[in-house]
Amino acid sequence: MQEIRSKIRAVPDFPKPGILFRDITTLLKDPDGLKDVMKYFSIRYKGRKIDKIVGIESRGFILGATLSYMLGIGFIPVRKANKLPAHTRRIDYALEYGTDTLEIHSDAIIPGERVLLVDDLLATGGTAKAAAQLVESLGGIIVECAFLIELTDLKGRDKLNEYNIFSLIDFKEE
Amino acid sequence: MQEIRSKIRAVPDFPKPGILFRDITTLLKDPDGLKDVMKYFSIRYKGRKIDKIVGIESRGFILGATLSYMLGIGFIPVRKANKLPAHTRRIDYALEYGTDTLEIHSDAIIPGERVLLVDDLLATGGTAKAAAQLVESLGGIIVECAFLIELTDLKGRDKLNEYNIFSLIDFKEE
Repeated sequence: MQEIRSKIRAVPDFPKPGILFRDITTLLKDPDGLKDVMKYFSIRYKGRKIDKIVGIESRGFILGATLSYMLGIGFIPVRKANKLPAHTRRIDYALEYGTDTLEIHSDAIIPGERVLLVDDLLATGGTAKAAAQLVESLGGIIVECAFLIELTDLKGRDKLNEYNIFSLIDFKEE
Repeated sequence: MQEIRSKIRAVPDFPKPGILFRDITTLLKDPDGLKDVMKYFSIRYKGRKIDKIVGIESRGFILGATLSYMLGIGFIPVRKANKLPAHTRRIDYALEYGTDTLEIHSDAIIPGERVLLVDDLLATGGTAKAAAQLVESLGGIIVECAFLIELTDLKGRDKLNEYNIFSLIDFKEE
């Protein structure tokens, strides 16, 4: 796990001054980086009763789709507003400043399906919570929310306390 | 191949009236959909001399990252403006109305590296051409541009005529 951690780059002052951004592109460009990450995710979820994997745009597509391939489970994208072409459910959610919108195709989930939600990063948890609510609005059941990185100081886990949460690596801000 | 084709949904009038949008989400949500697609991609590229796989945001992440995992080759995201945290190269390119911008991390490619460019859709070819030029601006060599879908009537292949092009499935507009 230390090897994965060491390949994640810390970029100061992105997206704004004072924020230390954890950049997974340095991990992904390593030939073994994605493979090592996915090994752990597949070990955790293989053989679990999961009907769909939902990935959140856009870095959640990288991990979510790869896991979907590995486990032979259908992949569902949750996207920003006006990107999905067919009929959607949408949810607005609060950001630090302003709001953002996520959408899912209305026919993406069959009521009662068990869903694994995947994203690269758990920060405040706002995006993941909105995505989970979209899944639930279609009758899906969130089995777990899985992240590559958790920024523990931001307490996203508290915001998602009604769900099972898994993160591979956590960072405390210095 | 007919099985893959039949799982792609045609959505009329998206993103605007008169456009028939080819929607891969219906393919991806099928448990075998991504697996079948990736089987063909991996057969084509296994054993080829490829140093990096570049995926274009955001549906290109789905295919590109999965192929990167399968072949054990590092994955590089090309993203819309202001999404990548470290130092980037950027390129502006013309759309039908207005312009758009793509970025790549400046340290993503080492000069001389052989790069496979991956996206879901070849339409007019403008986005792929801009992404290829970004890769070349860092000294990368485009081995091939690979797409799941090619809309042949839009002649993207002509715009990319200096590169090798591969597409798994093509559609003519009715």
